[in-house]
Amino acid sequence: MKASSRVRNLPTPSVQRLPVYLRFLKEARRRGDDVVSCTRIAEEFGQRSVQVRKDLAITGVSGRPKVGYRVDELIEAIESFLGWDVKTTAFLVGVGNLGRALLNYEGFVEHGLDVAAAFDANPALFGQEINGRVVRPLDQIASTAARLREEGRIVEMGIVTVPARAAQPVADKLVGIGVRAIWNYAPVRLDLPNDVVYEEVKLSASFAVLTNRLRRRDADE
Amino acid sequence: MKASSRVRNLPTPSVQRLPVYLRFLKEARRRGDDVVSCTRIAEEFGQRSVQVRKDLAITGVSGRPKVGYRVDELIEAIESFLGWDVKTTAFLVGVGNLGRALLNYEGFVEHGLDVAAAFDANPALFGQEINGRVVRPLDQIASTAARLREEGRIVEMGIVTVPARAAQPVADKLVGIGVRAIWNYAPVRLDLPNDVVYEEVKLSASFAVLTNRLRRRDADE
Repeated sequence: MKASSRVRNLPTPSVQRLPVYLRFLKEARRRGDDVVSCTRIAEEFGQRSVQVRKDLAITGVSGRPKVGYRVDELIEAIESFLGWDVKTTAFLVGVGNLGRALLNYEGFVEHGLDVAAAFDANPALFGQEINGRVVRPLDQIASTAARLREEGRIVEMGIVTVPARAAQPVADKLVGIGVRAIWNYAPVRLDLPNDVVYEEVKLSASFAVLTNRLRRRDADE
Repeated sequence: MKASSRVRNLPTPSVQRLPVYLRFLKEARRRGDDVVSCTRIAEEFGQRSVQVRKDLAITGVSGRPKVGYRVDELIEAIESFLGWDVKTTAFLVGVGNLGRALLNYEGFVEHGLDVAAAFDANPALFGQEINGRVVRPLDQIASTAARLREEGRIVEMGIVTVPARAAQPVADKLVGIGVRAIWNYAPVRLDLPNDVVYEEVKLSASFAVLTNRLRRRDADE
C-alpha cells in the first residue's frame, strides 16, 4: 500500500479525534448533507479550523476551498484510514463486568470489530452465553484459534479484560496464537514483542487526573 | 493548602503513571518491603530511572540516595496527591453495560470513589438494584442531591455513561446540581463551565489508534 510512508509518525491526538469527526459526519449524512465545511466541524467541537484541517489531512482527503469536504468521501477516507472498513477478528479474555460490557456493546461492531470468542479462567462461567458468544476455558485459546483458522478466520487482536495480576500471562497466550494487536484494559503495562501493536485503556489513569485536578481546585479556592 | 503553586501545570503523563506505581508499592508493602529504590521501580515498568524520579517528585516526596523511597511514605504521598485519601461522592448516569461495569467494579472504591446513586432514563430499570444502588429516574437527580446534602453528603462528581446523544443534557443536569468534576465515558466532547474539571475515557479513540497501527503494519509488510 503506497500510503505507508505518508502515514509514518502520525500525531496520535489527530488519530484519536477522527472517531468523533466520523460520528458527526455520519449524522450529517443522515440529515442529508452532502458537503460540510471545516469551519462547521471546528465550531461543533470547539477547535481551531486549522487543527481540524490538519487532523483530516492525515486520511489523505482535503476539502475544497469555500466548499468544504464531501461527506461521503470523508467518511470513507476516515474509515479506511482507521481500518474500520475491514473486519478485525478478536478474542476477548476476561468475562468480568468490563468484558461483559464490551461483549454487549455494539458500537465497535460497526467499526469492524468481530469478537469471535470469549474466554475466562472461572469454571462457573464456562458455557455461559453473552451476546452470542459462549464463554470458553482459558486453555482453549490455542485450539479455538486453530479451528477458526481452518475456517479462514485469523485472530488478529486480543482484548484483555482480566485483573491486573492475570494480564501478562493472558497476553503471552494471545501472542502465542499469533495476535498482532493487544487492547489492554487491565491496569498494568504489558511486556510484548515489538511487532505486536498495543493500546491501553487507562481507567485508573483517567480517574487519577480527574481527582488530582479536583483536589488542586479545592486547594486554590 | 500551600501546595497549589507547586502543583500548577503538572505534566499529565506523570499523573497518569502514579496509579501504576501505587499498585506496585502496595504489593511491595504486602511483601513486607520497607524501602524501594527508584531503579527497582524503573526496571519493573521498563522506564528510565530519571523519569520515575521526576514522576514521583510531583507528589512532594523524594527518595534518599543509595536507599530509595520509604514505601509507606510514598504510598501516602501518592494517595494524598491524587486525592485518593478522601471520599469523592459521585452520581452515575446511564446504567447500560458500561455503567453497570463501573457500579460493580470495586477498584475505585479504594481510591475514595463513593457512587451515591445511579440514574437512567429507561423506566424498565427504575428500582433495579446494582451493587447496592437502586436505579432512579433521571428527573430525580436534583431531588436526590438535595436529600444527600441534608445528610451532609455533597455530590462532587458526575460519571456519564449514557449514549453520545444523551451526554450533553445529562452533563448539564449534573452541572446544575453543582458537581465540580465530570468523568465522561460517552464518545462526545462535552461543553462545560470552566470551573468544572473534566476527563474523558476515550474507548473509540483508543480503538482507532490500535486499528490504525495494525493496518499500517499490514501495509508495511
